[in-house]
Amino acid sequence: MTDIATRVYDHAWRIDPVVRSILDTDFYKLLMLQTVYRRHADVRVKFSLINRTTSVPLAELIDEVEIRQQLDHIRGLRLTRGESTWLRGNTFYGKRWMFGPDFMAWLEDFRMPEYQLERKGDQYELTFEGSWPEVMMWEIPALAVLMELRSRAVTRGMGKFEVKVLYARAMTRLWEKIERLRQLPDLRISDFGTRRRHSFLWQDWAVQAMMEGLGERFSGTSNCLIAMRRDLEAIGTNAHELPMVYAALAEDDAALATAPYRVLENWHQDYDGNLRVILPDTYGTRGFLEHAPEWLASWTGIRVDSGSPEENAEVAIDWWKRHGQDPREKLVIFSDGLDVDRIEELYARFHDRVKLSFGWGTLLTNDFRGLAPHDALAPFSLVCKAVSANGRPTVKLSDNPAKALGPAEEIERYKRVFAVGAQQAEPVLV
Amino acid sequence: MTDIATRVYDHAWRIDPVVRSILDTDFYKLLMLQTVYRRHADVRVKFSLINRTTSVPLAELIDEVEIRQQLDHIRGLRLTRGESTWLRGNTFYGKRWMFGPDFMAWLEDFRMPEYQLERKGDQYELTFEGSWPEVMMWEIPALAVLMELRSRAVTRGMGKFEVKVLYARAMTRLWEKIERLRQLPDLRISDFGTRRRHSFLWQDWAVQAMMEGLGERFSGTSNCLIAMRRDLEAIGTNAHELPMVYAALAEDDAALATAPYRVLENWHQDYDGNLRVILPDTYGTRGFLEHAPEWLASWTGIRVDSGSPEENAEVAIDWWKRHGQDPREKLVIFSDGLDVDRIEELYARFHDRVKLSFGWGTLLTNDFRGLAPHDALAPFSLVCKAVSANGRPTVKLSDNPAKALGPAEEIERYKRVFAVGAQQAEPVLV
Repeated sequence: MTDIATRVYDHAWRIDPVVRSILDTDFYKLLMLQTVYRRHADVRVKFSLINRTTSVPLAELIDEVEIRQQLDHIRGLRLTRGESTWLRGNTFYGKRWMFGPDFMAWLEDFRMPEYQLERKGDQYELTFEGSWPEVMMWEIPALAVLMELRSRAVTRGMGKFEVKVLYARAMTRLWEKIERLRQLPDLRISDFGTRRRHSFLWQDWAVQAMMEGLGERFSGTSNCLIAMRRDLEAIGTNAHELPMVYAALAEDDAALATAPYRVLENWHQDYDGNLRVILPDTYGTRGFLEHAPEWLASWTGIRVDSGSPEENAEVAIDWWKRHGQDPREKLVIFSDGLDVDRIEELYARFHDRVKLSFGWGTLLTNDFRGLAPHDALAPFSLVCKAVSANGRPTVKLSDNPAKALGPAEEIERYKRVFAVGAQQAEPVLV
Repeated sequence: MTDIATRVYDHAWRIDPVVRSILDTDFYKLLMLQTVYRRHADVRVKFSLINRTTSVPLAELIDEVEIRQQLDHIRGLRLTRGESTWLRGNTFYGKRWMFGPDFMAWLEDFRMPEYQLERKGDQYELTFEGSWPEVMMWEIPALAVLMELRSRAVTRGMGKFEVKVLYARAMTRLWEKIERLRQLPDLRISDFGTRRRHSFLWQDWAVQAMMEGLGERFSGTSNCLIAMRRDLEAIGTNAHELPMVYAALAEDDAALATAPYRVLENWHQDYDGNLRVILPDTYGTRGFLEHAPEWLASWTGIRVDSGSPEENAEVAIDWWKRHGQDPREKLVIFSDGLDVDRIEELYARFHDRVKLSFGWGTLLTNDFRGLAPHDALAPFSLVCKAVSANGRPTVKLSDNPAKALGPAEEIERYKRVFAVGAQQAEPVLV
């Protein structure tokens, strides 16, 4: 029996929206948003979407009208009553009332601000300008829209069974990864793959497969909507966005040098427990830890997101030991370009030396490598970053110069101020 | 939106029937049935289901009640008006009115006769006794029920995503086979996999994948129900059942020696054109062709179903040449235990020497080898055969002694009468 009402209702959609909820975003965005809303609502920022994989000609693949329809749909979204109830009433990281009433009242009225979209050759220039707490909310949905429209563009030309087999292959591949991960008894791993997912439905499938296949070893998802619907922990703390904007706003080199620590001072006031996770690589992990204030060593853990993960984890372990901390009590979260091989290696090396956790991103939610002709569904490196704050350019160095962002002269100044020496370039896959 | 009516309707099923239509059977059964109904309605036969793969303990896997429910459901089936219309009105093998009004009137009232089911150790003994045209209709649905209940028994203990991935793997495997077959430009292949299919839904999926993947190279399915629903050619001619029963009824050795030819005399009267396909291996292909009457060389083709397919095809080609026939005008149908490797080899050797066709069975509709723990979904060799006719035992020799059926002393007598010399035993996979 065909359900006629469902068919008729489905036909009435003008488009098939990629993003259907304000909560279809990463949890750390909301944590950062509360901090930004309370402390820096007046800062003007510009975010820009950048395709680092220039061999993927987005403007050839995706029609501009289609992007506008998707982005306009997102601009029409508002937090629903049920979503608001979940944010207000849920326990996050074991804590109730994570989001204050002032912030929730604001978020309930929140709508996405304007966007600027322009074709430039075979790429699009997509930028967002306005107040920081509004503009920052575009990052994740903008990425998810472009990623999924590209998937749709590629699958549109396929036969029905070709498509079925495409997903059969992707499911098989993912399940084989899960079967390998199941061999690691103390594993803790979560989904960090919202931004560069193949599609919403595929991310949701991947999360459910992880739930069944890994049980307790699967600790949750960064995606708030999926966490809410699947009754999972929402996972995430903070991102490079905070030190990048704080640094851009610094008036001189002295203020610049301490900007990353001011981020963590604020964070220390706003959040506690497992949310106190250091992201040290924005301007070089070694220098950051060397000059860090003593109190930071008491934080719960560290997230390793660029450079050699082994090296950076060892640097953190040494740093904790020097400050009289027991590394076995500390959380180390690896989150940079992970796949099963690397997870196994890092697990073997660190699982009995620290509290270990993995944030698995693109190769969880978008490993379609080799599954379409001309590898047209391989994930690619799309980012959406703050490029300026109050008119000043932002800079990111990270521990991998291939991930550096910002004007060349500013990069040089930052390298000098943060005493970043020679860096090893690593290929950026995703 | 959940369709409540559908959910409620589905819940009202006491069981999930494996076979839901009289037409969920092989087309050749109906062709043979018409001949048997008209010529031998008074012959009493006994059919018996035999599991040649004794390592699969069917009685441990499947509850007896479950089998009875399925068989009882089949006994309640009757040809529907739409099915009757299709049989009466459709064109089969380019010919209208294949089934006469006398036969159709009988078939519209047809119901499956009784069955006898008994557990014997870790196997079941399932037998059917009665008039030939009634009992013979049990063969295909009885096999399909046992095969599918075994699949269900194995998948019942699996997790939801484990099951999804199981089918993802099976789909991927089948699609990769289809992609290989697509490389053979003059291929003609059809689905012969009803009897030992993994399940009805899986056979239906396999057929649809063949339709999309192979287009015109896919010539149809032996399954009448799927042929009707998917608007495909129904494929099939005749089976060992006819010569086995005719031979059992022979009064003496002289009558026995000519029994297989009497089958084809009757067939010649009842059907023409592409339905005139010789199945020569029941009592040895070589001897059968050597002693065949001249007029048989004018038939359309031959089906090679046991022994070495290359050797038997060469024997047939030589035989046609000796009788002044052009083998390039003759149809050779390979149908024994095929998979892609063998299809490619046979295609390479014969495609420009004869009109070539493949009947692909178990490894099309049930290739779940290696996909479940302990290989618990691997296909196995279940057959359902006439074991006696009017109280006399039936015998099948075939070109592979591993496929021989019947009492030992009768097998010896048949070997003597048909002058079958030494035979090469080949493993029977499915």
